[in-house]
Amino acid sequence: MFIESPRVTRLIDAFRRLPGVGRRSAERMALHLLSAPEDIAYELSDALREARASIRWCSVCSHLTETDPCPICADERRDHGLICVVEQPFAVIAIEKGGSYKGVYHVLHGVLSPLDGIGPSELKLDRLFRRLEDGAVREVVLATNTTPEGEATALFLSRQIAERGVAVSRIAHGVPMGGGLEYADEATLAQAIQGRTKL
Amino acid sequence: MFIESPRVTRLIDAFRRLPGVGRRSAERMALHLLSAPEDIAYELSDALREARASIRWCSVCSHLTETDPCPICADERRDHGLICVVEQPFAVIAIEKGGSYKGVYHVLHGVLSPLDGIGPSELKLDRLFRRLEDGAVREVVLATNTTPEGEATALFLSRQIAERGVAVSRIAHGVPMGGGLEYADEATLAQAIQGRTKL
Repeated sequence: MFIESPRVTRLIDAFRRLPGVGRRSAERMALHLLSAPEDIAYELSDALREARASIRWCSVCSHLTETDPCPICADERRDHGLICVVEQPFAVIAIEKGGSYKGVYHVLHGVLSPLDGIGPSELKLDRLFRRLEDGAVREVVLATNTTPEGEATALFLSRQIAERGVAVSRIAHGVPMGGGLEYADEATLAQAIQGRTKL
Repeated sequence: MFIESPRVTRLIDAFRRLPGVGRRSAERMALHLLSAPEDIAYELSDALREARASIRWCSVCSHLTETDPCPICADERRDHGLICVVEQPFAVIAIEKGGSYKGVYHVLHGVLSPLDGIGPSELKLDRLFRRLEDGAVREVVLATNTTPEGEATALFLSRQIAERGVAVSRIAHGVPMGGGLEYADEATLAQAIQGRTKL
């Protein structure tokens, strides 16, 4: 720590909780904000407070939004019979950047992880199942990550959703588009061959 | 931008002003803080506001401090006859980490830069010169950066300080300790040879 002050330590600790920020980066950020004109620090402080206060979870899909329902759920041109289930808001943003998916989403804000005490009720899975009740949903695409927890969550959900008579699918795993085979890891290659499609 | 919201845009812009933070990092930080429990965002917001409000410039040396004068200026065991002039608080921290310098500091918070309209009065150089008035200061070490502006500032200060009958020196420039000669750039090597010391 560069200045012996509990307040500065607290600031550095708060910066360190950000993704991709280590101790040195956090110190640089804190020092920058403490030595720059105070407006710059107060602007970040206020922008953060106001943005956080204005953002909530969509009551339908749990994506981050300022309006409720969120713009995606409110968009009548989208296919509301197709729900893509993801772990985090980041996944929605990534898929939306692709621009080809025209269905809607459901954000779990986590994955099943019994060791961490996260079961179906902690993930509020009943909110997802309720969306399947009126028969308007044709298909659910499971797009959880390929981690053990993500796979276990997909497996659990696939059974629960199938029981409700709704088609369920998993996003394809394989060699990334534009990537040479020599860059793909073994597990991805094995998955790509196993999941081959007929031409 | 991942959510169409002026508040989120403002937050991302505020993060981008931090050193070493580009657009993608700023988006990741904003998304993290907006999707994490709100306490985490408010903690950073509050820590920033409180730290910034508690930090001022030392009335003697202009270093960042919570107390006035700063702990370095208030330390009677330090050599108050030796002042090291630096551009930014970061330099004080770097030199203090070294642990061998026992004098005091003067932080300019900038350099002379006529093109940007920063002259001697904008840098409040009279505050530095006033410290030399009572004859207690023996020597001033100029530790501005080796940029054109830093060198010009050192040249200007060296003349002004010499006029006041105080010894003035410049920190040594040369090959970094522990670094092989093959990694030093030409200008550094030329300076290292020119500034050689007798053994």
